[in-house]
Amino acid sequence: MCELLGMSANVPTDICFSFTGFLHRGGGTGPHRDGWGIAFYEAGGYRDFRDPHPSVHSPIARLICDYPIKSHIVISHIRQANVGPVRLANTHPFTREMWGQPWCYAHNGQLGGWEPLPLSFYRPVGDTDSEHAFCWLMGELRRRFPEPPAARHELWQHLHALCERLRGLGVFNLLLADGDYLYTFCSTKLAHITRRAPFGKASLSDAELAVNFAEHTTPDDVVSVIATEPLTDNEDWVRMQPGELLVWRGGEIQGHYKT
Amino acid sequence: MCELLGMSANVPTDICFSFTGFLHRGGGTGPHRDGWGIAFYEAGGYRDFRDPHPSVHSPIARLICDYPIKSHIVISHIRQANVGPVRLANTHPFTREMWGQPWCYAHNGQLGGWEPLPLSFYRPVGDTDSEHAFCWLMGELRRRFPEPPAARHELWQHLHALCERLRGLGVFNLLLADGDYLYTFCSTKLAHITRRAPFGKASLSDAELAVNFAEHTTPDDVVSVIATEPLTDNEDWVRMQPGELLVWRGGEIQGHYKT
Repeated sequence: MCELLGMSANVPTDICFSFTGFLHRGGGTGPHRDGWGIAFYEAGGYRDFRDPHPSVHSPIARLICDYPIKSHIVISHIRQANVGPVRLANTHPFTREMWGQPWCYAHNGQLGGWEPLPLSFYRPVGDTDSEHAFCWLMGELRRRFPEPPAARHELWQHLHALCERLRGLGVFNLLLADGDYLYTFCSTKLAHITRRAPFGKASLSDAELAVNFAEHTTPDDVVSVIATEPLTDNEDWVRMQPGELLVWRGGEIQGHYKT
Repeated sequence: MCELLGMSANVPTDICFSFTGFLHRGGGTGPHRDGWGIAFYEAGGYRDFRDPHPSVHSPIARLICDYPIKSHIVISHIRQANVGPVRLANTHPFTREMWGQPWCYAHNGQLGGWEPLPLSFYRPVGDTDSEHAFCWLMGELRRRFPEPPAARHELWQHLHALCERLRGLGVFNLLLADGDYLYTFCSTKLAHITRRAPFGKASLSDAELAVNFAEHTTPDDVVSVIATEPLTDNEDWVRMQPGELLVWRGGEIQGHYKT
């Protein structure tokens, strides 16, 4: 299984602390040695860093830890290959442009019978079930909404229905973002925590590192972190339920869909 | 004006030497302080690194110099902003997926009257003339060829005609790639050099660095470098002519279109 890490914040925030713990799972404390990637939305722009090598040995991963990129949405993924060989084209996150927005996607899990899912506007570059499902999902959204709908909840509801179809094909834990919103869908495993004033201390489960968020934040900051497994051992993470879609913006939950 | 750097090679080759000289133009020997980016095609995969900060001060640029990424096609760009503010969304290269291939694009120059160019499948994320022209160009290719044409020269000929239309709007020097081929179109300034056995020495124009390619290559290697201005001062670069499109693969010219 792969591991997912996401962040939604109301101020540009760096992910160095969480990412430090997370990347130890990429060949350190975890078995996820088959590449990793991280995507940042910054002031309307998008960039990602991907590496088909284990994150614990990756100079690019070290750069991400040492060079704080401040962002309001982050999506990261560490891969343990099941479908598709280890290569750059199969390394998450994947990205496609829709409505002039860069959409970013990372998937944890494995699907069966995904090959017949019909593709329209978007086609996979690599050969994973994950990217095929992404291209299908984006194509379905775009066919239904050639333009972004004025009523956002229509989009979110349709996205939830599409996620449920994919959950019907196997395990489909999802992080998806469009630059404004972060979408998290739980099939089997996703947990989240929201940090706000009064900020406390946190210590990583996977590495010898603690942080006092009070020293790095202002009283109005709201930062939510979503991960496959809780990253800290002294905070109360909330586990999502199978079939649950959460829509995040500015660190807060803006939409909540359940089966 | 921005600066362009491209590479086409028949074996995975790192661009560290050329990029070292090139990035000195990003706020060092040149005035191009408004961001930079570099894209690599590696074994069917694609990744790019982009930074809205000057390349001479960029820790990501230093990483690219120190961490040799071996690739058969590279596109790099240093920006001096004219249309669109300095921000990540306006930082080249731009990328879109067509036919399951990641297409990558970088533009040097400035266009006038580009706003009416009609968009179809692809829309800009940022607000530059360059990205608008890219989305138009990709949309036109896709409308004409919903599937990749069996006869590649039809695609290349159409691409040349589209480039000529853009040249009619101003200055349009282009690097474009689809993962198999690198396309270089000259509007005012592009020069290229092909290095093959017997390899010699080269010294950079922009930095105190020389390399003996014979120590880093095998006799069968063919590596071509394309840049706005020659990067070395002791080799014979070939300057392209206005209206000329070259199609590169494996370091060799595979197609040549002129007005």
